[in-house]
Amino acid sequence: MENPSSSSNIENLQRNCYNEWMSLQAKRMTELKQALSNGEKDDDELRDMIQTVIGDFKDYARKRSEHSRRYSSNYIAPTWNTCLENALLWMGGCRPSSFIRLVYAMCGSQTELRFTNFLGNNNIDGLRVAMDETRDGGGSGGGGESMGDLTAEQLFKINELHMIAVKEENRLTKQSASLQEDSADMPIAVAAFYKEVIGEADVEVERALDKHEEDMAGLLAEADKLRLTTLTKIVEILTPVQAADFLLAGKKLHLSIHEWGKLRERRRLEGCGGGSGGEGARE
Amino acid sequence: MENPSSSSNIENLQRNCYNEWMSLQAKRMTELKQALSNGEKDDDELRDMIQTVIGDFKDYARKRSEHSRRYSSNYIAPTWNTCLENALLWMGGCRPSSFIRLVYAMCGSQTELRFTNFLGNNNIDGLRVAMDETRDGGGSGGGGESMGDLTAEQLFKINELHMIAVKEENRLTKQSASLQEDSADMPIAVAAFYKEVIGEADVEVERALDKHEEDMAGLLAEADKLRLTTLTKIVEILTPVQAADFLLAGKKLHLSIHEWGKLRERRRLEGCGGGSGGEGARE
Repeated sequence: MENPSSSSNIENLQRNCYNEWMSLQAKRMTELKQALSNGEKDDDELRDMIQTVIGDFKDYARKRSEHSRRYSSNYIAPTWNTCLENALLWMGGCRPSSFIRLVYAMCGSQTELRFTNFLGNNNIDGLRVAMDETRDGGGSGGGGESMGDLTAEQLFKINELHMIAVKEENRLTKQSASLQEDSADMPIAVAAFYKEVIGEADVEVERALDKHEEDMAGLLAEADKLRLTTLTKIVEILTPVQAADFLLAGKKLHLSIHEWGKLRERRRLEGCGGGSGGEGARE
Repeated sequence: MENPSSSSNIENLQRNCYNEWMSLQAKRMTELKQALSNGEKDDDELRDMIQTVIGDFKDYARKRSEHSRRYSSNYIAPTWNTCLENALLWMGGCRPSSFIRLVYAMCGSQTELRFTNFLGNNNIDGLRVAMDETRDGGGSGGGGESMGDLTAEQLFKINELHMIAVKEENRLTKQSASLQEDSADMPIAVAAFYKEVIGEADVEVERALDKHEEDMAGLLAEADKLRLTTLTKIVEILTPVQAADFLLAGKKLHLSIHEWGKLRERRRLEGCGGGSGGEGARE
């Protein structure tokens, strides 16, 4: 990337907006951890905290939308992200359905943990003790234990939400595919063909590309709305402790993927890798 | 992007592979133009040329596949692309269905041109003259005239191909969505949650991310195969002159989008834009 001279250019505004967002993630992570680690969990305090986190996301989406109207394309695969993050990106962010996968993953890992504890204790009381320890604000807190207490009714609602999210994702994916295909149509493709000099400026092409970025900005805003709605509905289904555990897990995942992405980036720049798995690249 | 010190690192291998590919595109563009501008078009020469171009793509796909096995994520949104190109990317390249949109766009623009000529001449002979000029190797060549001669049978076959391409694109898109969702599941999400330090190394996570990149590399190879099959079938449906015109249009479009992308990148870095359309960004 070139080094922008002006600090007020759009690239910088977008990048700063992202950096602020990541700092806020880290701050909220600490706050959620703290709120969850109180021996006596205060549901009202947790509820306030959850609303603040949802509010953060609303603010971020609003700022992104303001910055993306004419220059949305760098939200699709931002230069400030690692390659790993960009490979996991859907419409400039995470897939709404992945929020739900996270609920399942947290629930599954807790259930597994309890089952292992139970087998270790080798009696039915073992399971009961493990569950009692974590239920109703017991345990050390912030350890995700609450996610093992999801009821059948909660899981049913989460599953319904999953189906809606996937359907909406597919709808937006199709619209984005159609926008992408349009770039191989008139006027862009035809102008490209008839120009003598490759990349020669063309008012009609500029207009079409502006329109493309505006339409993509519209889709990004819809995707952010879907992310926000899904997040809001999940925390409504969960208890305050569960919702706080879930939001904490989401923030940790986001921040971790960013760091793991940087680690892999360095490895790719250093040479042929040497990760734990696989046989290494063949170059 | 950091500046890699070693010239043999994977990032550089991938980037060089891309740069060679773009130079080859420019070379083939000139060759196709030349072959098409011969007064007496030699179908055998054109056929050879077309096979060379298809062969180029095969080679490129093979090289990409070799370089992507462990580090596929930077093919999803390459750092060497402009944001505009990355926003138009599907599975590390163009959508196979966009090849077909290009056929339609070229055909449509020629038909429109002829119709305009006809109306200008204001008699039925006008249309005939315009068509005669371009048919069977007439006209100046390389001007895409042949694409106005697509028969109903050709268009029917192209349409069939379009439906197959879209179906296959959707299948691969779904697989990629499912891979993306997996990142919010065990073991990645759970490891992220239980680590005390964000981004702490973890063998199981490394293995899962390696597996993710390998699976994505598999999808990228499938996508390249679909691009190649679609391209091959299109040129089989077209006459040699039409196929050469189509391939020339494809290369011009690819090279132009790259240049237009750079132009927009500069504008974004300079400030609030000032393109032809829209009202400018609001910052």
